[in-house]
Amino acid sequence: MDLRRALAPRRTAHAHCDIPCGIYDPVQARIEAESCYRIIEKYHASSDEVFRARCLIVKEERAELAKHHIDVLWSDYFKPEHLEKYPDIADTCWKAAKQASQVKRTVDLEEARKLLELIDRIDEAWKGTGGQTSTRLPA
Amino acid sequence: MDLRRALAPRRTAHAHCDIPCGIYDPVQARIEAESCYRIIEKYHASSDEVFRARCLIVKEERAELAKHHIDVLWSDYFKPEHLEKYPDIADTCWKAAKQASQVKRTVDLEEARKLLELIDRIDEAWKGTGGQTSTRLPA
Amino acid sequence: MDLRRALAPRRTAHAHCDIPCGIYDPVQARIEAESCYRIIEKYHASSDEVFRARCLIVKEERAELAKHHIDVLWSDYFKPEHLEKYPDIADTCWKAAKQASQVKRTVDLEEARKLLELIDRIDEAWKGTGGQTSTRLPA
Amino acid sequence: MDLRRALAPRRTAHAHCDIPCGIYDPVQARIEAESCYRIIEKYHASSDEVFRARCLIVKEERAELAKHHIDVLWSDYFKPEHLEKYPDIADTCWKAAKQASQVKRTVDLEEARKLLELIDRIDEAWKGTGGQTSTRLPA
Amino acid sequence: MDLRRALAPRRTAHAHCDIPCGIYDPVQARIEAESCYRIIEKYHASSDEVFRARCLIVKEERAELAKHHIDVLWSDYFKPEHLEKYPDIADTCWKAAKQASQVKRTVDLEEARKLLELIDRIDEAWKGTGGQTSTRLPA
Amino acid sequence: MDLRRALAPRRTAHAHCDIPCGIYDPVQARIEAESCYRIIEKYHASSDEVFRARCLIVKEERAELAKHHIDVLWSDYFKPEHLEKYPDIADTCWKAAKQASQVKRTVDLEEARKLLELIDRIDEAWKGTGGQTSTRLPA
Repeated sequence: MDLRRALAPRRTAHAHCDIPCGIYDPVQARIEAESCYRIIEKYHASSDEVFRARCLIVKEERAELAKHHIDVLWSDYFKPEHLEKYPDIADTCWKAAKQASQVKRTVDLEEARKLLELIDRIDEAWKGTGGQTSTRLPA
Repeated sequence: MDLRRALAPRRTAHAHCDIPCGIYDPVQARIEAESCYRIIEKYHASSDEVFRARCLIVKEERAELAKHHIDVLWSDYFKPEHLEKYPDIADTCWKAAKQASQVKRTVDLEEARKLLELIDRIDEAWKGTGGQTSTRLPA
Repeated sequence: MDLRRALAPRRTAHAHCDIPCGIYDPVQARIEAESCYRIIEKYHASSDEVFRARCLIVKEERAELAKHHIDVLWSDYFKPEHLEKYPDIADTCWKAAKQASQVKRTVDLEEARKLLELIDRIDEAWKGTGGQTSTRLPA
Repeated sequence: MDLRRALAPRRTAHAHCDIPCGIYDPVQARIEAESCYRIIEKYHASSDEVFRARCLIVKEERAELAKHHIDVLWSDYFKPEHLEKYPDIADTCWKAAKQASQVKRTVDLEEARKLLELIDRIDEAWKGTGGQTSTRLPA
Repeated sequence: MDLRRALAPRRTAHAHCDIPCGIYDPVQARIEAESCYRIIEKYHASSDEVFRARCLIVKEERAELAKHHIDVLWSDYFKPEHLEKYPDIADTCWKAAKQASQVKRTVDLEEARKLLELIDRIDEAWKGTGGQTSTRLPA
Repeated sequence: MDLRRALAPRRTAHAHCDIPCGIYDPVQARIEAESCYRIIEKYHASSDEVFRARCLIVKEERAELAKHHIDVLWSDYFKPEHLEKYPDIADTCWKAAKQASQVKRTVDLEEARKLLELIDRIDEAWKGTGGQTSTRLPA
């Protein structure tokens, strides 16, 4: 299966997606993923049971928010024409969402680092497709 | 770009996704999409302004729930091996999520019908990949 | 006290409830209750502390959703005329909501099974009062 | 059907509900219902379209919160022994939840007043069953 | 810095805040803080691990609700003229919000008691500024 | 009243707030405020009634999120020692939260611009107190 061909004839169907051209920024996902990273660090630095239980509770909800922001970028921001320039972005978003689920499951700092990397790759594609100027207001 | 090849080397990375093999059912998305359909029907059948305003408020939130359930199926249920049997499923889920956004924007019944159809195609893939027996409890 | 008599004179007051004749389906409650069931199974199958803590966190939120869906069926779907055919339904819904609370509190699989049974009895009353045709869209 | 008899044999099954004997107070439902009342007053006092649209949006969410608090009182606070002293409480809670739905649908101030009255009847039963001392902390 | 002077010239800018003169009552924050208090009591009275884990999960969400209600009082109810009569109220609300965060972190009953005291001081200022008659409906 | 003196003796009481030194960034509030700004622009550019109703619904929820992020910065990030360097920050945060409420109420673009300016002043204080290095992870 060729993704470019598969998506080509559907461009018109997707065209409505550019209204409204909302505000998007992968930093929203990154901030939640950074929370997960710090929480895991603190989890390992502590031996207090109450604190550790709280780490798992808050990480669960922060990772869910990271996942939500990734889903929004994937289903709302990215459009078929972006896939031509960044053919891997479908897979990257998919992996990032799955990695956010993985971060819920684990206290392995490496998994949180992988999530940050995947979000940074989405960020590159967002910047490379003009996201910074088209989806944020100038200061 | 070939999606099958693109995903092949990443299978191991995705493999953690089968834990926990939670409960999934596209009927959750379908129920919310049916609400949107009925709300649009009622919107057109009424000339009461308060009622019509409420239709738009409730439709907004029901379409968001439909979208959430679609995102969960895409990022949590489907795994690389499913893409081999249903190579269009990535695109179908993407279109379904975008269509849920479209249903928020419109009072065109046809758009709600399209969302139902896309969810039904996800449902087919869910059934075809054994979802009914692997992700629901027997009655 | 006779429930039929107690409710009879109030029928008119409740009559507004059939607008809007929304979309209802006990499967929404059942899916969340199935999640609780599977989570409890997995809880006992694991000795990993992080995993077990996550089970309790997620079960808490899934049981709350089951309870919400039961409440919606009770207060929005069922109407006085349904009570004539299913005089126990008030008690069944009450017990089901209380059982959802119980499932939050426990890791006893039997309690999750009881919740499923109570939801199945609500489902019977929903089907027996024509819910499948009046509150869902045909495929 | 006799409600007292119907519930009698189920008392043991419900007995777990008194753990945890949480904090309950019908004032939570009343505050949200008062918001709905004031919003409807302001709706009629204004001719500004944006303001009126906002009234409907906020009323929708406040009525939902009122309904949630009523559901919690019904399914969590009240127990079989309370039904002996207040045999109408099942019906009052049911009507109150349905009335909260009605308040979502309307800008008729009388409907908001009816919701307040029903909540006040729940409040009487809560006080009459010792709720004030058993479910709140002393100042 | 003198707070009275600092706020004086900004009174006009804040004046819009009295529309809509919503419904406010510190009892909403107090009820959630009482839940935290009771949960901590029960936490110490139990040696059941599942129960104790649930205590931490539910306390986290109850303390967040207390904090939200405190924030609403601070940013929506209180206005510059109230600060003249209760010059400490800015600091009290700040401390109360921070104390709600502290209650999330701890199982020290004394911390929950401090939160109740701070909410009671907000309640005094609410009463002293006429909150009971201006922001609640008469029974 | 002198704010510095008023807060001085309470510093110890607030000291617990630096655990956990979570992740904070005013960009979260800014992104939601930018959404409000764009929504108001689009509201005026359209004459479609359904679109305009949706603008009010979505703006309501985006402004609430902006307000939440402002509240978090105020009650969680800022500490007594920051007030010495930025003595106006208490008032700026208060005005920003109130301005977020104002943005809910209006379709005046100027009000959305004022919210952005207030968030930018919070951002300055966050940067000036070392927020960028102490509360975000390096890329």
